[in-house]
Amino acid sequence: MSTPPATIDQPVKTLQNDLLLRALRKETVERPPVWMMRQAGRYLPDYLKLKAQYDFFTRVQTPELACAITLQPIDQVGVDAAIIFSDILVIPQAMGLEVLMEEGKGPSLPKVISCKQDIDDLVTDGAEQSLKYVYDALTLTKKELNGRVPLIGFAGAPWTILCYMIEGKGSKTWEKAKQFAYTQPLLAHQLLQKITDITISYLKLQAKAGADTVQVFDSWAGALSPADFKTYAQPYLLQIADALQGEVPVILFPKGSWYALKDLSNSSAAGLGIDWGIAPEFARELTGNRIVLQGNFDPAKLLAPIPDIKKAVKEMIDAFGVQNYIANLGHGITPNIPVDHARAFVDAVKEYRKS
Amino acid sequence: MSTPPATIDQPVKTLQNDLLLRALRKETVERPPVWMMRQAGRYLPDYLKLKAQYDFFTRVQTPELACAITLQPIDQVGVDAAIIFSDILVIPQAMGLEVLMEEGKGPSLPKVISCKQDIDDLVTDGAEQSLKYVYDALTLTKKELNGRVPLIGFAGAPWTILCYMIEGKGSKTWEKAKQFAYTQPLLAHQLLQKITDITISYLKLQAKAGADTVQVFDSWAGALSPADFKTYAQPYLLQIADALQGEVPVILFPKGSWYALKDLSNSSAAGLGIDWGIAPEFARELTGNRIVLQGNFDPAKLLAPIPDIKKAVKEMIDAFGVQNYIANLGHGITPNIPVDHARAFVDAVKEYRKS
Repeated sequence: MSTPPATIDQPVKTLQNDLLLRALRKETVERPPVWMMRQAGRYLPDYLKLKAQYDFFTRVQTPELACAITLQPIDQVGVDAAIIFSDILVIPQAMGLEVLMEEGKGPSLPKVISCKQDIDDLVTDGAEQSLKYVYDALTLTKKELNGRVPLIGFAGAPWTILCYMIEGKGSKTWEKAKQFAYTQPLLAHQLLQKITDITISYLKLQAKAGADTVQVFDSWAGALSPADFKTYAQPYLLQIADALQGEVPVILFPKGSWYALKDLSNSSAAGLGIDWGIAPEFARELTGNRIVLQGNFDPAKLLAPIPDIKKAVKEMIDAFGVQNYIANLGHGITPNIPVDHARAFVDAVKEYRKS
Repeated sequence: MSTPPATIDQPVKTLQNDLLLRALRKETVERPPVWMMRQAGRYLPDYLKLKAQYDFFTRVQTPELACAITLQPIDQVGVDAAIIFSDILVIPQAMGLEVLMEEGKGPSLPKVISCKQDIDDLVTDGAEQSLKYVYDALTLTKKELNGRVPLIGFAGAPWTILCYMIEGKGSKTWEKAKQFAYTQPLLAHQLLQKITDITISYLKLQAKAGADTVQVFDSWAGALSPADFKTYAQPYLLQIADALQGEVPVILFPKGSWYALKDLSNSSAAGLGIDWGIAPEFARELTGNRIVLQGNFDPAKLLAPIPDIKKAVKEMIDAFGVQNYIANLGHGITPNIPVDHARAFVDAVKEYRKS
């Protein structure tokens, strides 16, 4: 790489569109920033072309490909931020577990964690060093973005990563992961701590490589009861948010765990992602404007007619308010969304006027 | 059938254990009643024997088999209520749609609803008459129970039935069902109303045949945002609860839709089922003791060691309180639960003493 990595020391003012970062700093903005989870993905025809040529981990591990994919929605949909194309399961990989990504089947881990020895065998010291391709992709993307919009890095949350490490694939109930936690709580916490430590190092290196902010995806947090979330998810999310203080703003996205919003609003995170399972007004009530909220449009609603999308977006912003808010979906955009519907979502945020 | 069907006119006092019905009437009880969703199911070795001999719909449609399966957990696990062995998808069947139940794959409907004509073609008038085997199973089971415990009938909620009718199988996102609702709302409401009308007739006939109470399972309600729940789920749940007034107490179980608890607590339903995604204390706060709450033990927690199960059950009852409460799981018991763990759950409720 000939370009030196962008760092947090690089002044934000070089950004032409720094709406996202201003919102995360709770500065007054003229309208909410907007981006979409999985915005670089299978609903975009240009992404599908690269997908036809290169397998999943080739796309993830080749900085030029990851960069190209990351940039697609900036040009084509007009979002206010780029999020690096990668996967949360690079952490299990870095810790020595094989991860397969089979088309139409989702991820799978042939060897799962089932006992103390498995946890002891995980690579921990310096595991984050093996993810150089992510940092390179961030640095390259930062350069290619050329200040157009901020760049978001990300990682999976420890509970969600544990879920995959124990189950070896997606699950409706995450019953095996829970069984592991309920029957071997000490081992579960040991594993969660190892994942947390590496995730912190990983996110710091992402910041150093050019990420302006990072999001932590706790995709399966909502499988936990409020009490179990407090035991197995929250402490590790808080550790990550604390450790990144002074580096970049952190957005926590504990999908389904609306019950944790109050606690998490008192954390050192800058923002909280929420899904559509909670009304914006109630999310505000729970978080008392102490933290920036991000969300929460039902991705399935992007299948509605465009005028209905625009109306619903306006209602969403009315409900959240313009300030301390980042417009987003409540989960990743799905492959079957027409591009012009995704664009209508983004446009509706940009066109927002309170009436 | 030589036994006349039990009806609501039959005095409840003939029941030796009427805890469930007393709780549903908000009478003071000595301890909470307890039953488990899917308590007659695959975790029971005796159920597996019948499963090996008869296919799913043979088990459902043969009153002697449905009765035998319904009774198994009463004797073997000691629950305070029987719930008739059946399936929510008998309603689509009664309306003329084929439903297949393939082992390990879940239900599927080869022909789905996709347009007005499909809805017009559904059998409506008298569709509930084709479900005589359910009423016969209830009457036979009522007789065989011989007053030991109350008998629960059930149906799927209109939104959940629509989900299957549109998608043709289970889904993580119910995106097609939502797309149908968002793009053809009038047709969606027409379909929901047809399902509602038949469900009301069906539940009334269940009451007449011997069901002491009925539960309405809105298993996929939680896929909807609070606003969409109010549009596509709530009105039909309320219609059902209203229509059953004066017949039998109705328990509504809108899984995942904690946000609707306040509204539903002001309905004519007698009870509300909740899952483990909400703390008991907060569910009480939202419903203000206006309605009986049922739930909300995470079925996966039945995989914990027995002492931990018992401790968690005690904490759950402490949190809900003994009165206006029915101890249950927050969703159906899963096949991999050891029978003695299920029994420990039930025993813990029976042994409950406030300390």
